[in-house]
This record gives sequence, C-alpha cells and structure tokens, in this order.
Amino acid sequence: MKEADFLQELKELDLLKQAMSILEWDAQTGMPDAAQDYRSEVDGYLSGLYFDKATGPKIAEALDYFAEHPEELSEVGQAAYRLVKKEYELNQAVPKDVMTVYSQAVSKAHGAWSKARQANDFSLFRDALADNIRLTKDLIRYQKKEQANAYDVLLDQYEPSLTTAELDQVFHRLREGIMAIRATLAEKGQAPAKDFLARKMPKSGQQKFITKVAEELGYDFDRGRLDDTIHPFATGINHNDVRITTRWREKDFMTAIFGVIHEAGHGIYEQNIAEKYEYTPVHEGASMGIHESQSLFNELIIGGSRQFWEKQYPFFKECAAGVFDDLPFIDFYRGMKHSQSSLIRIEADSLTYPLHIIIRYEIEKELFNGTLTVDELPAVWKQKYQEYLGITPPDDLTGILQDVHWSGGMFGYFPSYALGYMYAAQLYHKMQETIDVAAVLATDDYSPIRKWLTEKVHRFGASKTPSEIILDATGETLNPQYLLDYLQELYFEVYQVQVIEHV
Amino acid sequence: MKEADFLQELKELDLLKQAMSILEWDAQTGMPDAAQDYRSEVDGYLSGLYFDKATGPKIAEALDYFAEHPEELSEVGQAAYRLVKKEYELNQAVPKDVMTVYSQAVSKAHGAWSKARQANDFSLFRDALADNIRLTKDLIRYQKKEQANAYDVLLDQYEPSLTTAELDQVFHRLREGIMAIRATLAEKGQAPAKDFLARKMPKSGQQKFITKVAEELGYDFDRGRLDDTIHPFATGINHNDVRITTRWREKDFMTAIFGVIHEAGHGIYEQNIAEKYEYTPVHEGASMGIHESQSLFNELIIGGSRQFWEKQYPFFKECAAGVFDDLPFIDFYRGMKHSQSSLIRIEADSLTYPLHIIIRYEIEKELFNGTLTVDELPAVWKQKYQEYLGITPPDDLTGILQDVHWSGGMFGYFPSYALGYMYAAQLYHKMQETIDVAAVLATDDYSPIRKWLTEKVHRFGASKTPSEIILDATGETLNPQYLLDYLQELYFEVYQVQVIEHV
Repeated sequence: MKEADFLQELKELDLLKQAMSILEWDAQTGMPDAAQDYRSEVDGYLSGLYFDKATGPKIAEALDYFAEHPEELSEVGQAAYRLVKKEYELNQAVPKDVMTVYSQAVSKAHGAWSKARQANDFSLFRDALADNIRLTKDLIRYQKKEQANAYDVLLDQYEPSLTTAELDQVFHRLREGIMAIRATLAEKGQAPAKDFLARKMPKSGQQKFITKVAEELGYDFDRGRLDDTIHPFATGINHNDVRITTRWREKDFMTAIFGVIHEAGHGIYEQNIAEKYEYTPVHEGASMGIHESQSLFNELIIGGSRQFWEKQYPFFKECAAGVFDDLPFIDFYRGMKHSQSSLIRIEADSLTYPLHIIIRYEIEKELFNGTLTVDELPAVWKQKYQEYLGITPPDDLTGILQDVHWSGGMFGYFPSYALGYMYAAQLYHKMQETIDVAAVLATDDYSPIRKWLTEKVHRFGASKTPSEIILDATGETLNPQYLLDYLQELYFEVYQVQVIEHV
Repeated sequence: MKEADFLQELKELDLLKQAMSILEWDAQTGMPDAAQDYRSEVDGYLSGLYFDKATGPKIAEALDYFAEHPEELSEVGQAAYRLVKKEYELNQAVPKDVMTVYSQAVSKAHGAWSKARQANDFSLFRDALADNIRLTKDLIRYQKKEQANAYDVLLDQYEPSLTTAELDQVFHRLREGIMAIRATLAEKGQAPAKDFLARKMPKSGQQKFITKVAEELGYDFDRGRLDDTIHPFATGINHNDVRITTRWREKDFMTAIFGVIHEAGHGIYEQNIAEKYEYTPVHEGASMGIHESQSLFNELIIGGSRQFWEKQYPFFKECAAGVFDDLPFIDFYRGMKHSQSSLIRIEADSLTYPLHIIIRYEIEKELFNGTLTVDELPAVWKQKYQEYLGITPPDDLTGILQDVHWSGGMFGYFPSYALGYMYAAQLYHKMQETIDVAAVLATDDYSPIRKWLTEKVHRFGASKTPSEIILDATGETLNPQYLLDYLQELYFEVYQVQVIEHV
C-alpha cells in the first residue's frame, strides 16, 4: 500500500463528509420543514456509505500496513493515521447490532424529549433517557480500554485524554473561585443598570454592525457566509467554505452580537487550519474544548474588553440609528457585563456560565460512575441549582429539559464548554507576554491577536492533542487560575469593587 | 429478483441525486466563490458513485429479470423500468474512455466560453466548440439506434421521440406565422409606451408582490422556497422540497416578476407529481418541453392575461409604494406586452422569442446533419438574425456567445423552449372548453387552472412520454396553430390592430 492510496481513501471519506455538512447546514438554515422525512433518508444513506467506507477493507489494510511501515508516511499522513486509527477502533469495538439498537434509541429519545418539552413534563422523557443511559453504558463496556472508569470513556470522545480525576480537581477550584467572586460582588459590588439592553435595534442595524466586527476580528466572508437559524452554529465544510449562523432578537441585541462574535471564533479557527491537512480528518479542530476556546476567546476576552467596546461604540450607535445616543459608553459596557443567576445555561453570563456546566458534569459523573438514577435526577437538578446559583427552576422546561444533549446521547460533552473558558483565559494570559492586547483592541487592526492564535492553535488542526496544544502554546497544562483571575479582575471593575491592598 | 429490490436500488440512486441537487442549489445560491474547486471534487465524487451504481450489476440484473417477467412489476415499477432501461442503454452504449474524453472537453469548453465572453471574442471559443461538436458526433455514433439522422439522436435526449422531420414542419409554420403577425403589427399596430418599465421598484416591494402571486398561482411555500441567484432556475429535490430562484433588478421589475411566475410554473409541476413515484426517476417532468410548457403557461398565458393583471394591479401598485399610481391600468398592461426585435434570447418578448429558438435550431441541425462548420457560424448567426428579426448583432457577446448551452455540449436542447410555448397554448385552448380561464383569472381563486394542469399533466410525472401527455390532454398531437392564434389575438389587442371582418 502506498501513502497516496491511503490519502485517496481519506479524501473520498472527506468528500462524503463535505456533502453531509452542506445537507446539515441546509437543514438548519433553509430546508422546508415538510421535507424532514425525505431528508432523513438522504442523511441515513450517506452516513451508511460513510460508515461502510470508514470501517471497510481499504482502511483496515492501510492501518495494518502503516503500523509496520510508519516511516513511509509523511507528517500529514502520520497525523491522519493516528486519528483514523482511533475512529476505526472505536467503530470496530462495538458490534453492529449493538450500535443499531443504540442509534434507534437515540433517535427515539430526541422525539420523546421534544414531546416532553412541549408538555413541560420530564416524566415523558424519563424512559427514553433511561434507555439512552443504559445503552451508553453498554457501549462503554465495548469501548473501554485503559480508562479508569466509565465516564472517562465518554470524556475521551470529546476531549482526548481528559479524565474525571483531573476534572474533579479543576472544577472544584473553579466552583469555589467563582462562588467567592460572586459573594464579593453581592457584598461589595454595585450592580450596573441594564434596562437599555431591551431597547429595540432592528435586525438590519445589528447585521451591519456585527458583519463589520466579525470581518475585523478576522472572519473571512470571501470563504464563508452568515445565515439565519434557530440554533446558531459554525460549520467548516472545507478550507474555503466555513459558514456561521445566528438568530436575531430586535429587543435583545446581545443575542446576535455576542452570538456572531462567538461563532466567528469557531469560523476563524476552521479558516486558518493549515490547508495541507485538507481532505483528511486532521483538517478539523483538535477537540470540542479547543474549539470552544476559540469561540470563547472572541466572546469572553475580546467581547469582554472595555477597550474593544470603547472603540466600537460610535459605530454601534450609528448602526442603532440613534437608539443609544443618550447612553454614556461606560454604562453601556457595564450593563452588558452584568452578572446574575439564571436558570437557562445558554442565556447565562460569563461569570455564572461555568457553574451551569459543573452542575451537569457532577450529575453525569454520578450517572455513569456512581449510583444516581434517572428518577432521582429532577430533585438533584433542583438541589444543585439552589446550592450553586441560589435559585430553583419552577418547572422542567427551565430545568432538566432545557438541553438537547442527553436526548442525543451526548454524555461527556458539557465539560468542553467550561474547558473552552479556561483554555481561552490561559491563552490570553500567555498572549499578553508578547502582545498588549488591550492596546491592540483600542486600534483598527486586531490582526496581531488572530495571528497569534493561528500560530499557536489554529494551524495545527487536529494534528496535536488538546493538551499538547495548551502545553505548547502556554508552557503549562490546564490551569483554572487564569480564568478565575480574569473573571475577578473583570467583574470587580464592572461592579466597582474596591480592592483594598494590604500593605 | 423482487420488485422491492429493484425499487430499493432506484431509491438509493434517487437519494444520491437529492444530495447532488442540494449541492447544486447551494452552489448557485450561496456557496462562497472561493469554494468552487473543493466543491467540484465533491460533485465529481458523488457523480461517480451515481454513475457506477446506475450502470452497476444490480440494475443490469433487474433489467434482465423484468424483461422476462414484466407482469411482476407494479404500475410504478413498469414506468420506472422504461426510464431506467433507456438511461442504462444510453450509458452502456458509449465506452467509458470515450465518455471521459467528452466530459473533459465539455469542462474545458465552459472555461473557454467564459474567457471568450470576457474578451467579447468568439475566436477564443472556436476550437473548444469545434471539439464539443466533433466529440458529440462521436457519441451519436454510439448512441444512434433507429433514428433517421444525427440530430434526431440529440433531440430524443431532451424530448423523447421528437424528430427533425416533425420540427422542420412545425417550425416552418411557426416562423411564417409569427413573421406575418409582426408584419401586421408593424403596418397597422399602435406600439404601446413602455418608459414606465424602468421606474424604480425596490426589491422588497417586488418580493412582497411576487411572493403572494406565486402562492396564489399554486406554488406551495411550505414545500419550497425562493432564493436569489444569478441564473434563475427551479429544482425539485423531492416531493416536499421544490425550490425556485430569481434575480432582482430594481429598475426593471419585469425581470423578477415574470421570472418568478415562470419558475413557479416549474415548481408547481414538481410539487404535484403523484407522490407514489417518489424515489424513482418517474418523479420528474416528462421532458424539457413539457416542463417548459408549465413554466410558460404561467408566464405566457397567465402572465399575459389582461384579466389577471387587472385584478392584481391594485396590489402591485401598493407594493410599489406609489411609483405607479399615476399610470392607468391599460397602459401598464399594454406596456408590459410590447414586442420588439432584440438580440438576447432570454430578454426577448413572447412574440419574438420563438424566432430566437428557430435560429438556433436551424444552425444546430446544419451542424449535425449538414455541412455547416464552426468557422461559418458567426456569419450564419448574423445573417439569420437579420433575416428573421431584422437586426444584426454588433459583436459576439450579443450574438453567438450569449448562450451557455453549446459550451456545455447541450445540442438539441433549444427546441424545448419553443415546444413549451406551443404546448402551453395548446393546453390553454383545450382548458377553455371546460374552464372560463379569463373569468377565473379575474377572481381571487386560480385553483381551477392549477387543478386542471395537475389532472392532465403534473401528476403523471415521467410515466408518460411528452407526446402521450399532449395527445391525452388535448386530443391531438403537437399543433403550432394554437400558439399562433393565441399570439395574434393577444398582440392585435395590445397593438390595437383593427381586424376587418369580411362579411
């Protein structure tokens, strides 16, 4: 077998994946609802072709051959080999009939979850969720290799090599730190006014503002596009076609403005992976956590910067056609960065967001490593929201039914979001050693920031593991302290907390 | 072999085709230009999968088996069998290497045509066009069965069973008839004023108007959508997903208004094919000519109706926000239906349009059945425009380089457009026996027209040949007289020609 044959097979797999990505983008942006059943058939057929090829004889032969002759692979081939081997072994580990039963259960659970949401009644989702958990535990038994426990197997799928042992420590520090900051804000802080956030800003004005900002941040519209959707996402179809989406709320401009800043971060990542990796699984993000670190770098670090907003505010006011002309900049900035307990994860501010994730992590871990049962879930959910955020969901819709993840069998995914926060802050800390970020954000040219991230993160695609990327970029492993330091400094400023220096 | 196995194979082919249709729609509506090269790879790969499957052993086995056991096929299976057999034999007839050479030449010719257009210089396209013609002649040698001549083989691809012998007669009558009407208009007619056609009507107003009209005509937006594009088209992806596109010109409202009325006709056809034919090649139009008959029924018959416009005019004026408030209805109507010689086919009015087609037909026929050479083309083109339309193109861009068809090897396609005109008028004539069309078009409810067309044309999909559809629907074969009668009545009214009745 020649490397070229191996790469050709990967290219064909990638071409199928590109077609599936366009179909998925289309389903989320423009497809008539009535076409859903027909579309499911197309998706199912292409997925089947993909799976058969990804587990087929050519891939098997390549994996065998290059295990014996690794020196015949180029750097691209070697990086691809590692990823393909992992996916192949994961697919091979589970008997086909077990996987079929699992897929059917997941598909059914999504329907049950939708119905339960419509009825605002967890009990309608209970059995399907129990099935998803039970069948996922079956899969874990087949997939488990050297991992210490069941939940580690799930974590590894989204964040290679991440373990429960590590997350326990990291999340403990993060939770304690955030709760301490919140306590200080409550005791000594001045909460900013935020009524203005509900002022009406027409879609066209929001669009004009955020399109220019996304471009300035480095998102290349010549190799992308921005569309409307219900659930915002970014999708890297190929090197020259990376699309982002958003939804618009005229009386809540923050939804689209921060939504696009966030998705543009994902998009910029995908647009700047080295083109040599195209047509292989290396031309993707290194992990969910690293991907989120790039969207959250945009949303949290850049979108949280006073200098950035001070520079953009005149243009923002212009796009809002007078609606904010009476509002002093500092009130605008402080209002956007207010923080308060809320029930819905995706609407949470950047200080409370990690707590939503930690709640889900603790629950999932107990479901898979411990003895927590589905019937105990609603009570545990409410108790943890009360304990960490001081509020209790009044119903299932604002509580345990809010996320799609469990209906889709995506256990182990949530931690990625919090990892993204921590990675972003850690990268930011390191970046400041060579770039005066606040100064750059006060200028017209943000490119030094984008270039640093491309140099340290984007270009590698999935050729490095997440921990390699963070270690190589910052000189140390994941450290939650940078996020805590960042949040404390930011929110103490916004809430005008007087820090008494003990001299 | 069971019928279910045959239909399953056809379904898988159809699922691939659906994926390719979405990709094509995407390429024409929203894909970033920069992604073209990547997209070509995806298209090429999926086309290859499709071709291998369509010419593969399962189809071959089914064709053999059901040739012996036709009684084991349902009506759907039988209709599908006929179409599959024809496509299979066409594919099998040509050796793969000959087809590859042809495909490469076509791809190259498209590039040459684009360059020639940019330079406004036919000589840059000359060699590629000569290659396309030479290689098409090679294909014809392999594909020719009982057809009398080379051009008949080409016609049969787009309009099954249509022959040069029949078209010669039909086009002769059509040309003579149209030229006679034009002579009368020139001699006795009052040309309407049409300056108002260039008044500015914003896109949003045009959109509001035409969306409502398309819906009233029967285009179902719940199973479709309207998007912007450069080259308007309609595409039936599946029974519940039939999309149309248009372009907008603020200072030429007719482009989008009549464009959408036209494309909606294609869309309504696809939306009303019997759903039982879905996942087979029967769930398509019967031919290019029949498809055009449905778009042109909308554009020519409905869009040419005084009663239709009289009813719509108040809403049109409202959508134009006052721009046409000073314009009496009859001036609006007459202006839209003015006729004059023009150089560009796709901008021609309904009276002169067929002459553009006849010119192309005569040229193509001589290229394939006669002795016309590529070097003689520019002169012949100019001479025919002078002879039939009284004008001579000043350059290649407004002359021989205007159409994409020859660069794509689509010889034999042009007559479909003129067939669509004649079929539409013939169907209209028959429809009037049971429906007072003018009266219906003066009401709020156009559904009797749509239902008649569904009953006689749409629902059959490709289960009948075009000639069967016309014969069954109208009781006679193609007859160009109905179009001539229709055009004469319409244009004599618009041009206020006094018809002296000899008593």
